[in-house]
Amino acid sequence: MTDVQPASSSGRRARGGADARRAARTSTAVRQSGFIRRAIKPYEPFSDDQLELIEANAEIVLQEVGIDFYEDEEAVRMWKDAGADVKPSATDPKRFRVRFPKGLVRSLIKTAPREYVQHARNPANNVTIGGNNTVFAPVYGPPFIRNLDEGRRYATIEDFRNFAKLVYMLPSLHHAGGTLCEPVDIPVAKRHLDMIYTHIKYSDKPFMASVTAGERSADSVAMAEMVFGKDFVDQNCVMTSLINANSPMVWDGVMLGALKVLARANQACVISPFIVAGAMSPVTTVGTLTQILAEASVGIAFTQLCRPGAPVVFGTFAASMSMQSGAPTFGSPEPAMVTFGAAQLARRMGVPFRSGGSLCGSKLPDAQAAYESANTMWSTLLSGVNFCLHAAGWLEGGLASGYEKLIMDADQLTMFQKFAQGVDFSENGQALDAIREVGPGSHYLGCAHTQANFETAFWRSGLADNNSFEQWRDEGEKDIVVRANERWKQMLRDYEAPALDESIDEQLQAFMAKRKEVLPDNVS
Amino acid sequence: MTDVQPASSSGRRARGGADARRAARTSTAVRQSGFIRRAIKPYEPFSDDQLELIEANAEIVLQEVGIDFYEDEEAVRMWKDAGADVKPSATDPKRFRVRFPKGLVRSLIKTAPREYVQHARNPANNVTIGGNNTVFAPVYGPPFIRNLDEGRRYATIEDFRNFAKLVYMLPSLHHAGGTLCEPVDIPVAKRHLDMIYTHIKYSDKPFMASVTAGERSADSVAMAEMVFGKDFVDQNCVMTSLINANSPMVWDGVMLGALKVLARANQACVISPFIVAGAMSPVTTVGTLTQILAEASVGIAFTQLCRPGAPVVFGTFAASMSMQSGAPTFGSPEPAMVTFGAAQLARRMGVPFRSGGSLCGSKLPDAQAAYESANTMWSTLLSGVNFCLHAAGWLEGGLASGYEKLIMDADQLTMFQKFAQGVDFSENGQALDAIREVGPGSHYLGCAHTQANFETAFWRSGLADNNSFEQWRDEGEKDIVVRANERWKQMLRDYEAPALDESIDEQLQAFMAKRKEVLPDNVS
Repeated sequence: MTDVQPASSSGRRARGGADARRAARTSTAVRQSGFIRRAIKPYEPFSDDQLELIEANAEIVLQEVGIDFYEDEEAVRMWKDAGADVKPSATDPKRFRVRFPKGLVRSLIKTAPREYVQHARNPANNVTIGGNNTVFAPVYGPPFIRNLDEGRRYATIEDFRNFAKLVYMLPSLHHAGGTLCEPVDIPVAKRHLDMIYTHIKYSDKPFMASVTAGERSADSVAMAEMVFGKDFVDQNCVMTSLINANSPMVWDGVMLGALKVLARANQACVISPFIVAGAMSPVTTVGTLTQILAEASVGIAFTQLCRPGAPVVFGTFAASMSMQSGAPTFGSPEPAMVTFGAAQLARRMGVPFRSGGSLCGSKLPDAQAAYESANTMWSTLLSGVNFCLHAAGWLEGGLASGYEKLIMDADQLTMFQKFAQGVDFSENGQALDAIREVGPGSHYLGCAHTQANFETAFWRSGLADNNSFEQWRDEGEKDIVVRANERWKQMLRDYEAPALDESIDEQLQAFMAKRKEVLPDNVS
Repeated sequence: MTDVQPASSSGRRARGGADARRAARTSTAVRQSGFIRRAIKPYEPFSDDQLELIEANAEIVLQEVGIDFYEDEEAVRMWKDAGADVKPSATDPKRFRVRFPKGLVRSLIKTAPREYVQHARNPANNVTIGGNNTVFAPVYGPPFIRNLDEGRRYATIEDFRNFAKLVYMLPSLHHAGGTLCEPVDIPVAKRHLDMIYTHIKYSDKPFMASVTAGERSADSVAMAEMVFGKDFVDQNCVMTSLINANSPMVWDGVMLGALKVLARANQACVISPFIVAGAMSPVTTVGTLTQILAEASVGIAFTQLCRPGAPVVFGTFAASMSMQSGAPTFGSPEPAMVTFGAAQLARRMGVPFRSGGSLCGSKLPDAQAAYESANTMWSTLLSGVNFCLHAAGWLEGGLASGYEKLIMDADQLTMFQKFAQGVDFSENGQALDAIREVGPGSHYLGCAHTQANFETAFWRSGLADNNSFEQWRDEGEKDIVVRANERWKQMLRDYEAPALDESIDEQLQAFMAKRKEVLPDNVS
């Protein structure tokens, strides 16, 4: 297996002609910023002793409590063969309790790579997931969309296409994501084909496979092979995909089916306990971290049972629960602590980490949404998240993809990208000559140092209004949502698709047509 | 000098009867949360080597460039006596350039306390400034107010009173602040009396002195003495007040006048370079930190020349400049890094640190305001700020105090307060028994551990809407600003003043009346 290391120049040369051909058949006029190479250290609020305690408790959970495997007998056999203790449920023949001898899970995880490259059809958009890198991907999963003109309604494939185009054009989104919204106008069993096709056709950034059934993951792999070549896909990661645990402590057949297809195809799985603490995990941060570690470890180890060395990510989605309404809440302190803790646990495990995003519970892109999103993003960036899904566009606890929210969040992501670059301590950065030149009681506006540096000195929001009150008033007192609404409409008018080889496009369309013939319009 | 240490139980007993009397003449039905004792460590992105470089560069600035003292000959004489090199300006007889022999400034700072207690007229509201503590104070200085009903207009003393009442009722604001807004309906030379009186009469939290002229600071001290007693004020801090540098590298007569009065009265000065980088400092983070350190060191040292041991805070206000419009911008990465760096420098110096706040450039309490405020507050909390002015209510780059913004920010502050408490690693926090009890495939909603902990488990926003979409829609699709508007109006209806000894009230009113007789209605 090659190339599940970061793209080094020698590695790039080794692939030689294939990269060149891919580069030749793709081009983009869109300026991309590249993923984040963090020059700042993570914030690590947990001590080694505390993390060791959580690890020891998670081992106790794996040995004594165990994890249920549901509707996947193959997975159960694989665990039995690996040395786990397997007991069938007394009441449900499809359910098995798996307990893990001390150290088994950890030892299986050792073959997982510390970081890997996910290839895009435009090699300039390849991302390295792991290490000091952070990759931002957009909102995933909502059945609804919201925009200023229409309010909230069910999403369609046209919305999906619009989001794909916008994400392609937004430099702070380094990854095209997956289910940008659910195109509910297309039958459930077929829509994964349209989504994968849209990601390939309308963008050239890396994307995610369908995971709603093993065969849909297989379709995703087949389509990726048409773009990248069969051998290349077998030896390189071209999709990073979301595999959620059924918390507490269940791995079910749907997710395991997708996991097996993808891991065996050498594609990356993000193994994510999906936690609303108080419902799916204990109400405490340490208890939640313990359960997350137990669930994630087992999922990660299982990818290595499927194919040792397959790329895999330790994922965590954490919200706390409103003890009044039962709804998940976002931007709150406990999930932030869970993110910081899980990031430290993932680094100790030696695998990449996924968490965070611009999460919020608000129905509107109002100040509640922004506070909650910013709160989540600060813990995301400072914890050292490597792969950040939902980094832009998320509204209403994940029920709606917001057009304006996408634009607003993506603007904020450029701020985090600049922050992560750290501080320049060169002689120019120290600026002693500027202080000497200007001296007391003057100003720096025109000095040589300012002139030489002002264009790159400060991050600049592309959406914030920093004009005078009078100018802002005379321009119609627009709030940020109105400005974002104007922005995404203009972007869609300006959109130009990246080139795609016609023969690949034809192959993809033929494959989709053939698959749609056999797939049902109604799924019971 | 006593009591510029944290309030220990022995220290409290030593004051004995005075505290008891103050407690007796005050009472409040408002539940207060108390200031933040941080149980989490700060985020420290700068290495010791990097901080030493900045300190060495600041020493070079102090030795070679120097700091100007303007319109304060007494201050210049004091520096000359202390061993500094003083040269008159060739063009302006009121201006002197002061250069500092190596180590002089640092050696003077050694008498400054590491932390101090600021007393409130209700001792339950005393705050400890320094160490691992964080104290939130409201917006300071805007000439305008904004609310949903009236938009933006000039502030009046009625607004000031409203803000004082709201701040008193908001538990996450541990400090009453100072100029909550400028009551422009009262003459400039007189309004400080009404502001100090309002803080004393309508609140019982700690407050700030007037600093717009030395004699107004003296009036503030005189009024504080009526509340706390003359001897008590001389021996204890009852006001923490804002002294801004005139950056770059000038200390002027207005601020020095206030500083001298307050430091000699043993009252705390927050020595704050006020920096819009690119205009008042170099465009780089390290250059800005160097200048801030030079300016702040000199101001801090000067308080110790006035009265060794007087409480003093290293302050920093940092914004970056829009290189397009020249306006200050907020929520941006460079000021965040300045805050992190200055906090580390202040800890190395051994004095409390002030910075941050819910700063934003937006004219409205929209998502721009919230993103920017949250961005600033995360760097505020994680840097380990001890005294945070502008923690709630700031709009429009400090030009407007927002009624709704005050309520919205204060709600977010409760989130930061919870986050700062850190994580519970007790047996209950570990929750292993809960994981054992619930097991795979169930849920934690009704388990014993959840029942025992749910009331305190999760922070709960008092303002966020986490109801279902349908419920939110049926209740009128209110955004957070509408909810905040309803909240502050209800709070003002519910407000009850804390008790104030009638004889003190009469003294204060008599003093104000007498002062107003001699103060002019017009100031040229």
